Amino acid sequence: MKNKLYFNSTHPTEEKKAFEAIEKEQHHVGYYNLPNQDTHVIVSYCATLSKEITTIAVIGIGGSSLGAKAVYEFMKPVKELSRKLYFFESTDPINITNLLSQFDMATTHFLVISKSGSTVETVSVYKYIFTLQNNPSAYTFITDPNSPLEKYAKSINASVLHLPDNVGGRFSVLSSVGLVPLALCGIDIEALLLGARKIKNSFFNDGYLKETLLKKAVYYAKNHAQYNINCIFAYSETLKYFCEWYVQLWGESLGKYQRHSAFHVGLTPIGLIGPKDQHSFLQLIMQGTRDKSLTFIKIEDFEDHIVIPDITLPHLEALDTLNNLPFSELINMQCDSALEALLEEGGIPLDMITINTVTEENMGALIFYYELLTSLVGELIDVNTYDQPGVEAGKIILKKKLQQG
Amino acid sequence: MKNKLYFNSTHPTEEKKAFEAIEKEQHHVGYYNLPNQDTHVIVSYCATLSKEITTIAVIGIGGSSLGAKAVYEFMKPVKELSRKLYFFESTDPINITNLLSQFDMATTHFLVISKSGSTVETVSVYKYIFTLQNNPSAYTFITDPNSPLEKYAKSINASVLHLPDNVGGRFSVLSSVGLVPLALCGIDIEALLLGARKIKNSFFNDGYLKETLLKKAVYYAKNHAQYNINCIFAYSETLKYFCEWYVQLWGESLGKYQRHSAFHVGLTPIGLIGPKDQHSFLQLIMQGTRDKSLTFIKIEDFEDHIVIPDITLPHLEALDTLNNLPFSELINMQCDSALEALLEEGGIPLDMITINTVTEENMGALIFYYELLTSLVGELIDVNTYDQPGVEAGKIILKKKLQQG
Repeated sequence: MKNKLYFNSTHPTEEKKAFEAIEKEQHHVGYYNLPNQDTHVIVSYCATLSKEITTIAVIGIGGSSLGAKAVYEFMKPVKELSRKLYFFESTDPINITNLLSQFDMATTHFLVISKSGSTVETVSVYKYIFTLQNNPSAYTFITDPNSPLEKYAKSINASVLHLPDNVGGRFSVLSSVGLVPLALCGIDIEALLLGARKIKNSFFNDGYLKETLLKKAVYYAKNHAQYNINCIFAYSETLKYFCEWYVQLWGESLGKYQRHSAFHVGLTPIGLIGPKDQHSFLQLIMQGTRDKSLTFIKIEDFEDHIVIPDITLPHLEALDTLNNLPFSELINMQCDSALEALLEEGGIPLDMITINTVTEENMGALIFYYELLTSLVGELIDVNTYDQPGVEAGKIILKKKLQQG
Repeated sequence: MKNKLYFNSTHPTEEKKAFEAIEKEQHHVGYYNLPNQDTHVIVSYCATLSKEITTIAVIGIGGSSLGAKAVYEFMKPVKELSRKLYFFESTDPINITNLLSQFDMATTHFLVISKSGSTVETVSVYKYIFTLQNNPSAYTFITDPNSPLEKYAKSINASVLHLPDNVGGRFSVLSSVGLVPLALCGIDIEALLLGARKIKNSFFNDGYLKETLLKKAVYYAKNHAQYNINCIFAYSETLKYFCEWYVQLWGESLGKYQRHSAFHVGLTPIGLIGPKDQHSFLQLIMQGTRDKSLTFIKIEDFEDHIVIPDITLPHLEALDTLNNLPFSELINMQCDSALEALLEEGGIPLDMITINTVTEENMGALIFYYELLTSLVGELIDVNTYDQPGVEAGKIILKKKLQQG
């Protein structure tokens, strides 16, 4: 992974302070350890699943589904996977009925994932599906030790796997929450962790990413009142769900009251896909309010070498400059052109992340890069990156409504 | 459709001024006429397509694909459609190869859609597909009269349909651009237009929506410096692509230099899906910077009556309050709970749009409601709602790169 910043930021004191804070918190915040984990429990568990199971269905929402979905949808178009993966992540009845019509219950294994073990959406959908498939061996539960869901799972003799200590939902993709569904589908989880480990080592052991990540985080934090929106502009359809994962990670981690002042702060995340969103959002970035920072993500080589054919269409000769161009090059030229146009326009903090191709290792790197960046920015804007107190109020109101119903 | 505002806005002078401007511009901006159009050309064209064609593939990007996709994905889970619809809307080679593997070329008809007739993405993908299927009768072209694409189409004796006068890409879903692919798949386009017509009549003929739309638009415009982000929070997975359509409509229409001052202005659009994004974005809305207005969209009756079964799970008895609840009711209780929690929190302009069920008529209403709102806000923040000069710079740079390549 490469990352080039197109803005200047030199604040050695803040950078040093942020680095020290992260170095300290890595000893008690669980996600920092995930790249170095021993996966044998996960691998052994996955080996127990019958070869006759052709479909894995995750029942989970938010942090319990977005990470695995990001990795799966990234790899699916380029890798022959061993099983299909579906996600029940809504209480929308049309969505539930529609998903159930797409696979055969008899050859499906369900992963019921809830950190707390009492997520309303997850338990509701599980109850419904359980009436259609009441064999406990069709289910594995992934939850925190001693959660009500674990106790329930044990009461029906179903398999249970745990989340590691102190890993929040939105930072859990590289734990059992993401690794189990992915490994069951034939995703190379060791490569995913290797990619994350390389970023971790580069950051903590004075590699090239340390300086870049610190400069970027300090710049975002110092300017967060002006640039209150942070966009990813990813030039590949394969990164669509990575963007959704990033939106949760960034939004839920950084939209908070400040710890020491109780001011509202936060950087709003937006995920864009190029070139499609050049025809949608680029106008706003280019000429709209100067409230956005923007990170391009580019894949150097798509390893799909289809080429625009060398044919001339009458009346469309002006577009013959496209002839013989691989689509892989065209899409990257489009990305570079958008970047250059925005640089010329000025006033928009830009950077470019480049990965060389679509592999698990590169996805692991992207994930860990964004987790580190989120932790750094959270520290610098003085919020608790790892809690989400703002979602409780709605849950309490729902609970009351349910009790009245 | 119902629309309830939870904020106060009383600015009769601005409301009157905005209404008069829109009444005036409806005579030369083409989209206002679309709900009243005569569809016989489209219907006759659709009748000519062989019953052996089972798949329609749109080659188009931005305004040429987002609208039809929004309607198709809304109706697909609830209606038995006569043909499948695919969208080639990227130059990502992995995406192109992957889409082509999903259907049979022999039973597919391609709609090549480009208003200008020289969109780089559309022509590139068309050239590639044309080498795989070189029968001109497998293609229909939808473009502006006398565009290079029309001239090309005529040179190969392929069918051509036109866009109506003065209809911009992002306002074109109710023209041939959206109606042709939708009608070919069995979507009821008359019902879609009826829904739009009802909103149009309510607005222009002193119906209940006139006051609501004007109040909302004036409020957004007056407060756009503070509330520079406008979110839709739609409680149904069926509205996912409607949100993408809205993002283009809003972002590309309203992110501009002002006409009379050349200041950068714009309201950034964000599309959210509930309850999923309660686990992602709600924290940021609740406790983050007070820079967002928020519109909930709720479907009163999903017409899918699956119910949470009346079973007690040991250790999860606390969730028995969910038992016997239809999912349709649960998701709407979740929507109401999020709204109430945000109302209690305060400081966030909220409103709720309710449609009664998933039908073409309701989608037509939503589309026209948002088009009118966009036009009103554009008028009030003093931009040209219908151009997109900011995307030209990148196109010029790409053109240079292509000539050098």
